[in-house]
Amino acid sequence: MKLLEDRIRAEGKVLPGDIIKVDGFLNHKVDVCLLRECAKEFGRLFDTSGITAVVTVEASGIPIATVCAEEFGVPMIFAKKAKSDNISGNVYTSEITSYTYKKPVTLTLSKEWLTSEDRVLVIDDFIANGQALNGLIDIIRQSGAKLTGIGIAVEKGFQPGGANLRAAGYNVHSLAIIDKADENGFVFRSEE
Amino acid sequence: MKLLEDRIRAEGKVLPGDIIKVDGFLNHKVDVCLLRECAKEFGRLFDTSGITAVVTVEASGIPIATVCAEEFGVPMIFAKKAKSDNISGNVYTSEITSYTYKKPVTLTLSKEWLTSEDRVLVIDDFIANGQALNGLIDIIRQSGAKLTGIGIAVEKGFQPGGANLRAAGYNVHSLAIIDKADENGFVFRSEE
Repeated sequence: MKLLEDRIRAEGKVLPGDIIKVDGFLNHKVDVCLLRECAKEFGRLFDTSGITAVVTVEASGIPIATVCAEEFGVPMIFAKKAKSDNISGNVYTSEITSYTYKKPVTLTLSKEWLTSEDRVLVIDDFIANGQALNGLIDIIRQSGAKLTGIGIAVEKGFQPGGANLRAAGYNVHSLAIIDKADENGFVFRSEE
Repeated sequence: MKLLEDRIRAEGKVLPGDIIKVDGFLNHKVDVCLLRECAKEFGRLFDTSGITAVVTVEASGIPIATVCAEEFGVPMIFAKKAKSDNISGNVYTSEITSYTYKKPVTLTLSKEWLTSEDRVLVIDDFIANGQALNGLIDIIRQSGAKLTGIGIAVEKGFQPGGANLRAAGYNVHSLAIIDKADENGFVFRSEE
């Protein structure tokens, strides 16, 4: 998606350790108009008829998932990153190792809000190794809901998260796939 | 706001310990159409001309702040609840005690995204004791940004968070103020 790639070129930063920062428009200070355009693009890439919810993971997935949910006319549900003393019984859980926090985190989602009756589209702002999304997919599997697709705004194409999801057969679309990022700028994968 | 009060009456739950659950439409499974109506109401209650951002706290404030930011044509910025090993130098911080987690949490917000040039509207989904909002206000004070108002969807009127903010002189509007909640249902404060 050219609009997003242009924005990454203009404002994205590459930090030591291959860390890509897009926090001026995507996941700290958030340009909601850009997210609306992303949501429209996801609407072209996925068949959203018949979905019952957009599902994401807190916190930075929430803005784009919120806009997508409104665009597709369904609720947005977010999995929480639970502190251990805050997990009640009636939840799906999945253990992940957060790339950001470098420690185990438990994702939780109330059984009340996701069941085998649901058909969901997963939306997230960013994928690198895919830990958080793998945990979310595990929760969706536990619920029995049908996962119709996975839409990601920015994918680090040189880390395995997106490739692993495609190899596992999921219907994945990333709006910008960064294959290389260094002091010379960003190289994006051509549109699929 | 009658639409929100009606929804709380229909779907809100009261748990032991005066805990009010609105997680089927506000802060776990989220009805974004309802949030759009809330955003329009905030637009009537606040003068949003000249604001440069909507500011909130992760995670459950993000959906409503995202919709408000789009409604008012400005970016949305969210303070993060940091794990201690994830705080870089260039951030405002404020220590809070989370009601949900019952332990200290550090709110952080990058100095890059909030400065004395900004005029901000704070938006949050819920206030009880106001710990998170007090931390966010502290961060806004550190930044030198002008805080033009504080909009909250649901206020627990029998806990001191909202009253304390009004007593301190802030321009606060809550769309639904619950003065009493028990097995007989919800009692709302009359519109201001």
